[in-house]
Amino acid sequence: MNLTKTLQEYFDELSSNSPTPGGGNVAAMCGALSASLSMMVCNLTIGKKKYADVEPEMIKLKDQLEGYQKKFFELGTKDNEAFDKVMEAFKLPKETDSEKELRTAKIEEATIGAAEVPEDVMQVCSEILPMLKTIIEKGNKNSLSDAGVAVSLIATAAESAYLNVMINCASLGNQTIAAEIKKRADIRMDEISQTSEYLVERVVKAVQQQ
Amino acid sequence: MNLTKTLQEYFDELSSNSPTPGGGNVAAMCGALSASLSMMVCNLTIGKKKYADVEPEMIKLKDQLEGYQKKFFELGTKDNEAFDKVMEAFKLPKETDSEKELRTAKIEEATIGAAEVPEDVMQVCSEILPMLKTIIEKGNKNSLSDAGVAVSLIATAAESAYLNVMINCASLGNQTIAAEIKKRADIRMDEISQTSEYLVERVVKAVQQQ
Repeated sequence: MNLTKTLQEYFDELSSNSPTPGGGNVAAMCGALSASLSMMVCNLTIGKKKYADVEPEMIKLKDQLEGYQKKFFELGTKDNEAFDKVMEAFKLPKETDSEKELRTAKIEEATIGAAEVPEDVMQVCSEILPMLKTIIEKGNKNSLSDAGVAVSLIATAAESAYLNVMINCASLGNQTIAAEIKKRADIRMDEISQTSEYLVERVVKAVQQQ
Repeated sequence: MNLTKTLQEYFDELSSNSPTPGGGNVAAMCGALSASLSMMVCNLTIGKKKYADVEPEMIKLKDQLEGYQKKFFELGTKDNEAFDKVMEAFKLPKETDSEKELRTAKIEEATIGAAEVPEDVMQVCSEILPMLKTIIEKGNKNSLSDAGVAVSLIATAAESAYLNVMINCASLGNQTIAAEIKKRADIRMDEISQTSEYLVERVVKAVQQQ
């Protein structure tokens, strides 16, 4: 993710007919928004008398979340790069048989690469969810809705990544590899959906009881 | 939304202990990401021979989506402003009885205002969904996953706004007004969840059949 760009530039590029940044980049963006919002909840908990007993845990958690924020930024950049490689492979010459063969192999290789990045996004989403659970349970109760938004963002980050895994697998020549990748993504998506739905419901109930 | 800020500045402010931008702002941000990604799909459809018959519709849709992108930007700004008003009201003097009374009334007024902005975000999410359905059905099939991501983002924008409606209602003194707002938000959330789940499932099936 090129963080020196203005929001205006990012939105302009996203809306344009340039294929990157696209949905895969936005998946990582959602993850970064989630990590950032969770860090805010930690920051709004740290230094408050009422939450003094969880302060060491919140400080540690904030540092970990900052690491995850960075991971999502990196995955945003990697997604753009992986997609650009697919585009480059499609532009390879296809006059002779050997050229055609090389081009097909390069497209296949690049497409597997383009499926791996969203798989990594899903992996990072799985890893961050237990931290969000802790924030919901122990963080500043005034920021409970923010913690809930962070969970909702992870569900969308994962779902967006899942859709990108699927569309890349659909265009793979080797459908055995595609089936393996899809199976892994299906299992992970189910886990993330279940956990995030449960956590959002918990937040809704807790907010209503406040 | 202050679009002249860099992504780095936005993420830094989001992570900080300043309560704005917070979850309500991120709800509008998700809406803007969705509108932008949908505009990208329109742009990747316009000018393609294969999609010549839907070109006039895609051009019209792109313009409408640009309007929605702006609405979400505005709601992002309004959310920050509404939350700042709540904070200001809490800072009013509370020495005398009349000061206490005024302060309570101002907090109540500002909190209703802070619930209205996410209600508007949910309204705009409802309005944009039929456009995303058209993009899924008629837009460039190579960008089907992007259209799916746009839907997933609307689901999160609405869910995030819903959580913000709920947390504001919880702190309202007038629980009759709170119950009315919550009822409207519940109905709208159900509608958006059902439509977006249905659309994402459709995208997943369509991508797998490609």
